[in-house]
Amino acid sequence: IFTRGIQTVTLIPGDGIGPEISDAVMKIFEAAKAPIQWEERNVTAIQGPGGKWMIPPDAKESMDRNKIGLKGPLKTPIAAGHPSMNLLLRKTFDLYANVRPCVSIEGYKTPYTDVNLVTIRENTEGEYSGIEHVIVDGVVQSIKLITEQASQRIAEYAFEYARNNQRASVTAVHKANIMRMSDGLFLRKCREAAEKHKDVKFTEMYLDTVCLNMVQDPTQFDVLVMPNLYGDILSDLCAGLIGGLGVTPSGNIGANGVAIFESVHGTAPDIAGKDMANPTALLLSAVMMLRHMGLHSHGNNIETACFDTIRDKKVLTKDLGGNSKCSEFTEAICQRVRDMN
Amino acid sequence: IFTRGIQTVTLIPGDGIGPEISDAVMKIFEAAKAPIQWEERNVTAIQGPGGKWMIPPDAKESMDRNKIGLKGPLKTPIAAGHPSMNLLLRKTFDLYANVRPCVSIEGYKTPYTDVNLVTIRENTEGEYSGIEHVIVDGVVQSIKLITEQASQRIAEYAFEYARNNQRASVTAVHKANIMRMSDGLFLRKCREAAEKHKDVKFTEMYLDTVCLNMVQDPTQFDVLVMPNLYGDILSDLCAGLIGGLGVTPSGNIGANGVAIFESVHGTAPDIAGKDMANPTALLLSAVMMLRHMGLHSHGNNIETACFDTIRDKKVLTKDLGGNSKCSEFTEAICQRVRDMN
Ligand SMILES: CC(C)[C@H](C(=O)O)[C@@H](O)C(=O)O
Ligand SMILES: CC(C)[C@H](C(=O)O)[C@@H](O)C(=O)O
Repeated sequence: IFTRGIQTVTLIPGDGIGPEISDAVMKIFEAAKAPIQWEERNVTAIQGPGGKWMIPPDAKESMDRNKIGLKGPLKTPIAAGHPSMNLLLRKTFDLYANVRPCVSIEGYKTPYTDVNLVTIRENTEGEYSGIEHVIVDGVVQSIKLITEQASQRIAEYAFEYARNNQRASVTAVHKANIMRMSDGLFLRKCREAAEKHKDVKFTEMYLDTVCLNMVQDPTQFDVLVMPNLYGDILSDLCAGLIGGLGVTPSGNIGANGVAIFESVHGTAPDIAGKDMANPTALLLSAVMMLRHMGLHSHGNNIETACFDTIRDKKVLTKDLGGNSKCSEFTEAICQRVRDMN
Repeated sequence: IFTRGIQTVTLIPGDGIGPEISDAVMKIFEAAKAPIQWEERNVTAIQGPGGKWMIPPDAKESMDRNKIGLKGPLKTPIAAGHPSMNLLLRKTFDLYANVRPCVSIEGYKTPYTDVNLVTIRENTEGEYSGIEHVIVDGVVQSIKLITEQASQRIAEYAFEYARNNQRASVTAVHKANIMRMSDGLFLRKCREAAEKHKDVKFTEMYLDTVCLNMVQDPTQFDVLVMPNLYGDILSDLCAGLIGGLGVTPSGNIGANGVAIFESVHGTAPDIAGKDMANPTALLLSAVMMLRHMGLHSHGNNIETACFDTIRDKKVLTKDLGGNSKCSEFTEAICQRVRDMN
């Protein structure tokens, strides 16, 4: 009876400050009585037969079974030929949609207010194909690969997302004036998806124009969908508008409910182990995860407690402008969620 | 005697508001007694033998002879297969460096102050190679082409520019973590140029990190150098920080002094012919041109007159927050330059 409805999630604490902020999230989840059980896994890449880098089998098995993961920051690999673990995870589990909501946080001052948008990035191909050649000495080509299937999948996802999250419009971001065939294909698939979702407004805009408009007035944007590299750029730009990667959640979504939610900031080795880290990005990613799992009220409570704590300004980590420790900030949030129950 | 030292510049007024703002620039140049003689040319593309699109011969001949051009906005082509005239001009004259200074304009309020940076964009290759293929139905590739020669040329240019313009640092912007060979080559050439220019500080940063840092604190950047597409994006983003394309100058620089300076905003057909356009971007591009030609004091006077007029706030075009006509704004600047002589 006790475990009825409890779901297991694979937790990848990660490197540097990863374990501390994962701890913080677990404490807050406990305080909120979120029906989640954690299964911790390490994902340091290992080399399989033929030297191919891969996720350790026990981590892969855990994700395959649980379908849902929460992940802290991972060290950038230094060995030559060692892949980015973030990219390897996205690839291994075919997490084709990278979703990053950017919402202004009340009480955390930036040059912008009322930002409320979501970037949806194609996460599997494009400029990240990894196909490159030397043509002749001193002449190199990288291949951007765009497929109908992946474009259609992400376009559909964006419109479904907009509908399910009561969002009014989707903007396709592209450079089809330059890459007429590849971005042209991507754009065509967005237009086709728009045709099927007439309830959601559709616009298209050049990437450069989006960047310009974004810094002038981000409130004009709602859901944005785009190829891989453009998403990499635009999601970071948008994170900057609301306070940076320390407060921005992210989700990598695949088919059949598979998903990994992650903080996208670095491992911050300089402050690791010093009880100084800010767990907000991982916590808000975990909130996205709860909603993805249908646990909306738990998600809402935790989010409210987090935002209230920030707005209150009394207990904040250093990067948020305060003097408190990670553990104190975490406890302040726990207190608020407990009060809600 | 009268014409001694007078230099001829090819003027491409362009479409839409192009002729009006070109007129404004000519009036201000006259008031400033700038020793420039204009040679007007139209650059509507024509089709040569074999259907190849090209610049009209008389415009090409004029540019070849004068080496320096000033250009207003050009209509985006609508005919299938018709190239962007902006790209065709860059290609025809091998204008390999696209230079866009972004400096906060006192009195023109944006969320940022004290922006003072320059984006230097490789202008001839990269994602703009135009090479694309359908591999199989529904699978398309675009080729990003990076060469040692073009990378070295732009890297050298960035450091020379920094030195000649008393700028302290150059940041190479790249995604060599993803495009290891192509951006890797570009980055290597930047590092080599840095070795040769030890007087200029050198840093390297991922494009996504630059975007994030840029919107958080643009004052940390000075000169930035990058491949073609990244420059397209970043130059527009930076223009947004200081007020948009209506106030941002641009120069396309080639070998042996050849250069075309241009406003990068659109043709604004809705206000064309109504004496409402803002000539600032074209005027500041013309100021860049004067400096490029060694006519620094004329350039400085015109720039000061323009900025003083904006700071003064009495006579401003609508987009700048005022109620004045293009001709009135122009006359206000003329008055100030005349007072300087
Ligand atoms: C870590 C890196 C490979 C990654 C990317 O370029 O996609 C990161 O910037 C991101 O946005 O998740
Ligand atoms: C007009 C267009 C082809 C061009 C580009 O993409 O380079 C423009 O955006 C620019 O920045 O000059």
